[in-house]
Amino acid sequence: MAKRQIYLEDIPLAEARATLQAALASAGRAAPLPGESLPLDEALGRVTAEPARAALSSPHFHCAAMDGYAVSAADTVAARETKALALRLGREAYPVNTGDPLPEKTNAVIMIENTNQSDESTILIYAAAAPWQHVRLMGEDMVATETVLQVNHQLRPVDLGALAGCGHQQVIVRRKPRVVIIPTGSELVPAQERPKRGQLIEYNSLILRSQISENGGEAEVTGIVGDDETALQVALSAAQASKPDLILILSGSSAGSHDFTADAIRSLGEVLTHGIAVRPGHPVIIGMAARIPIIGVPGYPVSAALTGELFVVPLMRQWLGLAPIASPTIDAITTQKIASPIGDDDFVRVALAELDGQLQATPLRRGAGVITSLVQADGLAHIPRFHEGVDRGGRLKASLYRPLSLIKRTLLIMGSHDPMLDLLATHLRRHTSDQRIVSVNVGSIGGLIALRRREAHLAGCHLFHPESETYNTHYLARYLPHEPVELVTFAQREQGLILPAGNPRGITTVADLPGARYINRQRGAGTRLLFDHLLAQHEISPDAITGYHHEEYTHLAVAAAVADGIGDCGMGLRSAAEAMGLDFIGLTWERFDLAIPRRRLESAGILALLETLRSSEFRRELGAQSGYRSDETGQVLTK
Amino acid sequence: MAKRQIYLEDIPLAEARATLQAALASAGRAAPLPGESLPLDEALGRVTAEPARAALSSPHFHCAAMDGYAVSAADTVAARETKALALRLGREAYPVNTGDPLPEKTNAVIMIENTNQSDESTILIYAAAAPWQHVRLMGEDMVATETVLQVNHQLRPVDLGALAGCGHQQVIVRRKPRVVIIPTGSELVPAQERPKRGQLIEYNSLILRSQISENGGEAEVTGIVGDDETALQVALSAAQASKPDLILILSGSSAGSHDFTADAIRSLGEVLTHGIAVRPGHPVIIGMAARIPIIGVPGYPVSAALTGELFVVPLMRQWLGLAPIASPTIDAITTQKIASPIGDDDFVRVALAELDGQLQATPLRRGAGVITSLVQADGLAHIPRFHEGVDRGGRLKASLYRPLSLIKRTLLIMGSHDPMLDLLATHLRRHTSDQRIVSVNVGSIGGLIALRRREAHLAGCHLFHPESETYNTHYLARYLPHEPVELVTFAQREQGLILPAGNPRGITTVADLPGARYINRQRGAGTRLLFDHLLAQHEISPDAITGYHHEEYTHLAVAAAVADGIGDCGMGLRSAAEAMGLDFIGLTWERFDLAIPRRRLESAGILALLETLRSSEFRRELGAQSGYRSDETGQVLTK
Repeated sequence: MAKRQIYLEDIPLAEARATLQAALASAGRAAPLPGESLPLDEALGRVTAEPARAALSSPHFHCAAMDGYAVSAADTVAARETKALALRLGREAYPVNTGDPLPEKTNAVIMIENTNQSDESTILIYAAAAPWQHVRLMGEDMVATETVLQVNHQLRPVDLGALAGCGHQQVIVRRKPRVVIIPTGSELVPAQERPKRGQLIEYNSLILRSQISENGGEAEVTGIVGDDETALQVALSAAQASKPDLILILSGSSAGSHDFTADAIRSLGEVLTHGIAVRPGHPVIIGMAARIPIIGVPGYPVSAALTGELFVVPLMRQWLGLAPIASPTIDAITTQKIASPIGDDDFVRVALAELDGQLQATPLRRGAGVITSLVQADGLAHIPRFHEGVDRGGRLKASLYRPLSLIKRTLLIMGSHDPMLDLLATHLRRHTSDQRIVSVNVGSIGGLIALRRREAHLAGCHLFHPESETYNTHYLARYLPHEPVELVTFAQREQGLILPAGNPRGITTVADLPGARYINRQRGAGTRLLFDHLLAQHEISPDAITGYHHEEYTHLAVAAAVADGIGDCGMGLRSAAEAMGLDFIGLTWERFDLAIPRRRLESAGILALLETLRSSEFRRELGAQSGYRSDETGQVLTK
Repeated sequence: MAKRQIYLEDIPLAEARATLQAALASAGRAAPLPGESLPLDEALGRVTAEPARAALSSPHFHCAAMDGYAVSAADTVAARETKALALRLGREAYPVNTGDPLPEKTNAVIMIENTNQSDESTILIYAAAAPWQHVRLMGEDMVATETVLQVNHQLRPVDLGALAGCGHQQVIVRRKPRVVIIPTGSELVPAQERPKRGQLIEYNSLILRSQISENGGEAEVTGIVGDDETALQVALSAAQASKPDLILILSGSSAGSHDFTADAIRSLGEVLTHGIAVRPGHPVIIGMAARIPIIGVPGYPVSAALTGELFVVPLMRQWLGLAPIASPTIDAITTQKIASPIGDDDFVRVALAELDGQLQATPLRRGAGVITSLVQADGLAHIPRFHEGVDRGGRLKASLYRPLSLIKRTLLIMGSHDPMLDLLATHLRRHTSDQRIVSVNVGSIGGLIALRRREAHLAGCHLFHPESETYNTHYLARYLPHEPVELVTFAQREQGLILPAGNPRGITTVADLPGARYINRQRGAGTRLLFDHLLAQHEISPDAITGYHHEEYTHLAVAAAVADGIGDCGMGLRSAAEAMGLDFIGLTWERFDLAIPRRRLESAGILALLETLRSSEFRRELGAQSGYRSDETGQVLTK
């Protein structure tokens, strides 16, 4: 095992940034990069390195602004509505189309609509022309030498047009910041390889490289360097030799890995900070060697992506002469308590939805290894240092990862998560590209509580009530006594025992479970209620079930736990068992409903959802899934 | 001259869009495009054509979430704070780094901080381990088969990371919409050529092509086709043969040009609409031939760019499965009356600034030929059909072309425009990339009125008062009697007579002007006041000056008019004369001041501006310009 450095000196984010800036300044690297000349049609999105001045006036001659006849205004003064004036073509009047240069000695255009051609060589006019009427004067748009674009301006389509229009073929833009990315970690394999047990796919380099290119830089990714100090020194020296603007060393996931990074930087230069008080992202390293800044990026993907956002992207923009990204920020109330370590700047990924005019933030899973929490995040809440967090119902500020307009069109489904809700979302997006559903898994009862608290637009549930042998209706009455709610059937699903392939323990009913290691679902999950009901039917006490207190949050997680040998059996959907190649013994078909408050039924989002749910296309695809029936899909059961 | 179609059938924008959609639907072209498989590192910004499901779980084995020792929780139950338990290395405890797979039969990790190594083969622990503590369970992030990304999702860096992390090397993204752009117009030359008199640079294709590529499509631009029906038919047939998703025919600027376009479309298919009630942009043509939609784009660059925004960009997004762009929209009050044609959807480019907490919109020049009005625009106000416009002080809605945060950091300078204000803006942007100044030219007195109306943060002025022989102070007292204002000297500038190269009329003083064609400045301009003063000194009546009523709005425009032979003389800055290669006879040095309301002096923007103004770097560069002195630059003259 590698030697370990257990305590990192955590410095505040602002101080780390100031340290980096001071080091850049003293290395002469704080200023925007110099310019390079590019043809206009390759310059979209690039940033001007100097102001652009008009090389030519535009238009560069006086020209007709209308189709008609160019005249000298002085020749027209006698014309009256009641007394037409004849002008000789080619001598006093010249036919011009819009854009044509004015013939010499003319200074006005008469629109063709206001003339009559009396014969081949003469036109009649009925009003005097004012000097310069219907004429685009030379330089109307741009006058040669005037400033057309400022420095540090990111080029848009119209900017390129303006540059071409005033005589430029090229534009001086800042060269792209160049970055070398060195992924490290003996446990890593490139994304092109299939990982063996114990190996992890290296994808942080893909995230960082994409962040860099999205922000105007370009990154080269080296091969993966194992956890070996000498090898890392060699890789770092090679990176330095190509004289990039920045080197990123992506640490492996182990704590020891950061030490290799720090040691390698120290061997060639200086470590400026090691450890920053941000969460996630603590073990960021900032160093400088041979006047090139080096950032040691933590190994967990969320930490790596956030380090990119906090340190790498701002550097790209600084070097391009652009202001930092100012993501739109919103105020929201949080649906869950967020506890933050008091010494850290805490960055929390949140799902956002608007309910009854109020933006609500639901924190997503906080593990730094859960990249899907960033994929799913609508925003990033920043709980500043010296704050202990936010209570449920408290206010927070979040910068947005998606347009607010999209968030406002989001239907939030809380409750039990069925994988086919993703299929519904797919069909909905195919039909109406501007309507989105987001499903947050809190279990069936959690969903009804969320409805009561008005934290979700609708809830997914499959709650069996043994006494009445009904699904869901009983629980609606219990949890939402004061809210009229409609139940719309989503699907019938086959629930049963999920067993290792080949069923080595020969389990066939719940009665066989005592003695086996069972994988349970969390409290409030419909599947857990169903299991409790089956236990009661078989008169088995929960205490007799090994693993009754082991809680997983989804059907797939239960199946994964069985597939990996953590347990001998779990209960869940046929589809989950089959997805993992496991055995399945069906026990019952249950009804999974969507509970929708009646006052939301007429909202555009719910209408679109119901239309998609009831479409023959969706019902056909749903019904074709193993373990699903869609005959009742879309039917309404009034509470 | 080509035959002309004078009346276009203008249909409303919404109807034109509906017509296009109906035609697309009946040609089977309304749906998003099919997918193609791309390596992940080429897929940034592309759009998923189907949902992406996890190919592998991530992690795909249980692994240590901390550096420490993997153990079986059952082996640790006897450990107490007061009674250490010894575990044998390699039999009951296995050293693991974060990310390592758990050895068989272990189900928990004890952090290294909570252990002591008693000898080479034994560690001591002081607390029992809970099952699965500090373990990342298989599938914690993604479980194989679960949906990781939805269809119609534009791929961001973290999305690519997530795809790689769950075992993908490729992703199915929608193929790019392909467009052929045919520029037409006999008067046009490519941007690579220097235009002769009567020729215009063709740059609409560059704007449209850039709009298309910025929105995920790709466009091929053909050579310029002259105003010839057969040639256009040939070009259109060739474009159809390459089976693009869309063909754009860019009309030349003449009205006749649109007819060529319409006739060519008709010869191969159908014209669906010819003329749309939008301003600018009227003569848009929509057609369909061989199941390929064709849009005839008007020739004026602002109309062309707006047609791109209104028709082409939405098509790109539709074909990619993306919702229409929802630009942020703001409410502002307008500083000028906007008159809109009642039958049109009127799109007005506006400059935006925040004054005293209120966003204010100032309409920019409205000519469809003025591409710089789009370059300078901060937003686009939409005056809907059946509205006659907005009065000064009235409210309008504008979609933003720049981030609101940047607009809020904008200092609006109204009044006289000195070209060196652009130099100041350049220096300011170099120093503080997040501070912007925008200068709107309304003449010196216009600037003081704007200050009084609180429509500008500061004003530029050079107003000579003959009686007191002072600059500016007298006029401040007159126009801003109730507002304490500080005058900060911007520059001393040399004013004089701008004359054709070689001074063919031998003009040397104002006394020589009667008989010559003079180019005057607009009322309220400081240069006009100065000219009036010189006329009075020479006892010359304005009536004796030919062209006294010909008004230009800038020094450069006066110089351009002299250069082009419209006039024999004008008055203005030495710098303007020299920029145009003209003769110049200096008459006086004048002071150009910035008038800044005292209550704004402590704002961040003004402080940054004054710091830049007073920097030795700026003053040196300003003083080195011909016709400028900077010895007093930055000095304060209290009113």
